[in-house]
Amino acid sequence: MKKIFFTPGPTQLYGSIPKYINEAMKNDICSISHRGEKFEEIFQSTVSNLKVLLNVPNDFHVLFLGSATEAMERIIENCVGKNSFHLVNGAFSKKFFETALELKKSSQRIEAANGQGFDFGKMQVPENTEIICFTQNETSTGVAIDMGNVYQIKRKNPEKLVAVDIVSSVPYVDVDYSLIDCAFFSVQKGFGLPAGLGVVIVNENIIEKSKFLHNNNYNIGSYHSFLSLLKYSGKSQTPETPNVLAIYLLGKICSELSKSGMDKIRRETEKKAEIMYDFFEKHSKYKPFVKNKDFQSKTVIAIDTLDDTQRIIQKLEQNGFIVGSGYKEFKDKQIRIANFPMHNEKDVRKMLSYIE
Amino acid sequence: MKKIFFTPGPTQLYGSIPKYINEAMKNDICSISHRGEKFEEIFQSTVSNLKVLLNVPNDFHVLFLGSATEAMERIIENCVGKNSFHLVNGAFSKKFFETALELKKSSQRIEAANGQGFDFGKMQVPENTEIICFTQNETSTGVAIDMGNVYQIKRKNPEKLVAVDIVSSVPYVDVDYSLIDCAFFSVQKGFGLPAGLGVVIVNENIIEKSKFLHNNNYNIGSYHSFLSLLKYSGKSQTPETPNVLAIYLLGKICSELSKSGMDKIRRETEKKAEIMYDFFEKHSKYKPFVKNKDFQSKTVIAIDTLDDTQRIIQKLEQNGFIVGSGYKEFKDKQIRIANFPMHNEKDVRKMLSYIE
Repeated sequence: MKKIFFTPGPTQLYGSIPKYINEAMKNDICSISHRGEKFEEIFQSTVSNLKVLLNVPNDFHVLFLGSATEAMERIIENCVGKNSFHLVNGAFSKKFFETALELKKSSQRIEAANGQGFDFGKMQVPENTEIICFTQNETSTGVAIDMGNVYQIKRKNPEKLVAVDIVSSVPYVDVDYSLIDCAFFSVQKGFGLPAGLGVVIVNENIIEKSKFLHNNNYNIGSYHSFLSLLKYSGKSQTPETPNVLAIYLLGKICSELSKSGMDKIRRETEKKAEIMYDFFEKHSKYKPFVKNKDFQSKTVIAIDTLDDTQRIIQKLEQNGFIVGSGYKEFKDKQIRIANFPMHNEKDVRKMLSYIE
Repeated sequence: MKKIFFTPGPTQLYGSIPKYINEAMKNDICSISHRGEKFEEIFQSTVSNLKVLLNVPNDFHVLFLGSATEAMERIIENCVGKNSFHLVNGAFSKKFFETALELKKSSQRIEAANGQGFDFGKMQVPENTEIICFTQNETSTGVAIDMGNVYQIKRKNPEKLVAVDIVSSVPYVDVDYSLIDCAFFSVQKGFGLPAGLGVVIVNENIIEKSKFLHNNNYNIGSYHSFLSLLKYSGKSQTPETPNVLAIYLLGKICSELSKSGMDKIRRETEKKAEIMYDFFEKHSKYKPFVKNKDFQSKTVIAIDTLDDTQRIIQKLEQNGFIVGSGYKEFKDKQIRIANFPMHNEKDVRKMLSYIE
């Protein structure tokens, strides 16, 4: 039986991925030199398609890494001398914070319980903070932060850098890049690609900070320091031989999504989210984990399924639908359903019909 | 026209790669969870196939990274408090050394000119050296170090760690892992895979050193510290969502190469190398860059082609053969021809026939 993956990442591939891979094979994309013209054209095309799709200003730099997890490490290395500040309300925001500690920074955090948002009105960012790290969409718990809150914090702290993890909300989340300094994601979620590529989008403030740290003898890493990545991206290249196939595929998918139009994709995403939240709000037993509607993610929907969790996952699988289990301590108590652009309304409704 | 890539990496893909990718697509390999059983089976199978192929002892750990360039950074981070020692005779060995400096280590080097080997009999390794870093096969210049010289240095310095870059000689190079501590490579060269995966093979001495540094408050990195990689590899997983497709393909290719048999592959490699070196030794104008036969790489063959370089490259391309140009300062003076397992003798002879 053909399966449809509603997992929050890796997830269902875009339907056209096999076609693009065949095209890549026929055109020797995986054999060409990463220092040659053909690769530079692919690099330029992908960066350009991505900037158009996500409305990224021209003065931002698109840098390619191995994963979003790597992005956390590289942001801390390149933007933090001593102090970053983290909003922690789940496993991935916690990982971002812990990455800073592992890299020997004296970072601080504000914590909210799993499934909860933050009280942004009262939030005090410590004075010595160099970068404020948001996890806009907590993949572990399905809590989303409205970008308006991020902009508000940036306006109150204009001299501090702001980095935003949009791993499981991109391309749905509508980011005004002029009000943040850095965003990052990986490609195996909303972009529906095979895993193995991370993307970090940075402005000149981030680059200036990396230069400052480098000039003051901080260790900002080697081949994947932002300065090294920037040096090569200026030539439409990467410091190492990168995942050329993934860069190629990302460009193709960005172009396809732009043709559909982000307005349409956002409307569809919101409609599918409404269908799912509505179904579970009305369900007698299974309820959304995130109670406050202001914090309910549109792209990762966590549901308390209690003792029935494994039974639900199995029944859905028998009918061709793969959903995620809860994250870590919620493994046997929740399911998580992704709502990405490749997931269509018909399949959402069909999937829900198998949940009693 | 169908092209054959004799480039030193990325290079010609194995002929069966498109078949394995189709198989991966059909079996949803790129959609499965990297925390689930199916991924763990792929991980185990690839590690097992790789260990069989390369004759890696069971007590070594196979860790997956994004590239061989990353491996250089991670080895320095995890094995060097203050001092590493590098044998530098080309661009990649120099990069390994410079990575150590960028990571704020007080590393030292011994240098040989491009195209030259080392006088191992006289070599003195500085006393405070924590790890000796060999680039066994310099992709930039086609100089290879006989593994016997590596073992000799290790025997003289048993308390020092030894790391060996086998990026462009694997799987041809026959390594006795009991006489080194660490080897690393990427998959887009001798393994004929799409780029985007690095592999580092380490023993317990390397892990012990990482633990020592970690316990003494050194920064050994975060998600890709050897301790983090080891924690996850113990569960047949990786810290981040990895390049699952590449891990899957590597396992398939290792299995295929094992079926051919490494003895046969090594004999064929040596025969093809002999054909090429013989051709150029006898050529009136174009000569091997590496003069000393003891240091001539069997897998990356650099030829001084002088003013004719671009003309040769173009003529070969018109006839379906892609060879590499010289590296950096040798770009317009040399060609580099790879000799990997997917390159067959018939094509080598045909390719040479187009060089006047």
